[in-house]
Amino acid sequence: MEIKVVANVLKLNDEVAALNRRALAEAGVACLNIMGSPGCGKTALLEATLPRLRPALKIGVIAGDIATTRDAERLAHLCDGVTQINTGGSCHLDANQVRQGLANLDLHALDLVIIENVGNLICPVTFDLGQGAKMGLFSVPEGADKPAKHPRIVLEADLLVLTKTDLLPHVPFDKTIFDADLRSLRDDVTLIETSVVSGAGLDAWCQWVRRFVDERKGVQARQVSQSRTE
Amino acid sequence: MEIKVVANVLKLNDEVAALNRRALAEAGVACLNIMGSPGCGKTALLEATLPRLRPALKIGVIAGDIATTRDAERLAHLCDGVTQINTGGSCHLDANQVRQGLANLDLHALDLVIIENVGNLICPVTFDLGQGAKMGLFSVPEGADKPAKHPRIVLEADLLVLTKTDLLPHVPFDKTIFDADLRSLRDDVTLIETSVVSGAGLDAWCQWVRRFVDERKGVQARQVSQSRTE
Repeated sequence: MEIKVVANVLKLNDEVAALNRRALAEAGVACLNIMGSPGCGKTALLEATLPRLRPALKIGVIAGDIATTRDAERLAHLCDGVTQINTGGSCHLDANQVRQGLANLDLHALDLVIIENVGNLICPVTFDLGQGAKMGLFSVPEGADKPAKHPRIVLEADLLVLTKTDLLPHVPFDKTIFDADLRSLRDDVTLIETSVVSGAGLDAWCQWVRRFVDERKGVQARQVSQSRTE
Repeated sequence: MEIKVVANVLKLNDEVAALNRRALAEAGVACLNIMGSPGCGKTALLEATLPRLRPALKIGVIAGDIATTRDAERLAHLCDGVTQINTGGSCHLDANQVRQGLANLDLHALDLVIIENVGNLICPVTFDLGQGAKMGLFSVPEGADKPAKHPRIVLEADLLVLTKTDLLPHVPFDKTIFDADLRSLRDDVTLIETSVVSGAGLDAWCQWVRRFVDERKGVQARQVSQSRTE
């Protein structure tokens, strides 16, 4: 009985995620779901790169946290619309929360919605939010064993980012183990190594985002056109 | 219906936690449940301090992770018994998993069981495991906003530890904000600031553990004696 209820919750979530995906496609907006541990540098990466991505891209942000509006406050002046979702105690964003977040953004004025999920390397991966791509973050001070300990985000991510590489001289981090564990799970996933302190990898991440938005809009346009002729 | 099932799961968990608590009391073993984000330094703190706490204290460890036995391997030669619990995909240890972990340890030969929970600052806090005390870790590179964003662990912890203070010169971390947020939630909680690199705070943490074990054994002895006379 317990399993059935959990399955129903996930099924309901998937149905709302499909509605989100359709709303995003009809507005021609790409959507990226960013996930990682508390303090892995999700907000810092956005702070460092939103100014480079704009104004060419119009970007809305949905920031998820258990409590506080601090991330939204940090990002408000750097994007074209921001919504903070406080989950209360819940450890992840679900599709219905994102649906409410999307309703607070002027989708037709945007190219990209970035969802900054609740700081958690585990539960958010399970919940489809209607995004076009999932991105997983690991940070250098967390240690090299995190891909092996958290395989699901490695298996499901469209992009992985290793943050805080400027700390490599100051912490024990065996990059050989990190890479070997990652590649033993998946040899086809893109990994970008970044530091908002040194600036390393920020151009590569911006390029990835621009390409993602272009490709996603192409896919969406074909889907919308196809659904209208059906 | 969903809420009822979740409530039942928690009720069942609490019942098994009570069994764990009784088994620990009857064996005269204190139990500490350690929680924090992935990579916040739970295992590193134990690696650095188990050699100081032993042989005066006999210590068993239950290490929780989604996957791998790496933590148990790191700690095996440093303690008097270790059990690794792999949760599969689950984001926390529950009381039944700890019950199985306790069954793998020779409780009557131990003074203390340390539960190193799954790396997650959110879900583990909800689940009573039968421990005598809860300890929450924050690490400096996670940033100063974590107590405000994760209030429940602050509210429920018997001890908070701030790890990796050696990184303070290398990362932005506003200690004034960290302290103010912490004290606005609770002004009575003990905070120990540690670094396994510099050694700062390790003596204070060991002293806290020794006092906890002494006090807990006293409480348990009175409880067991009382239940026998009832």
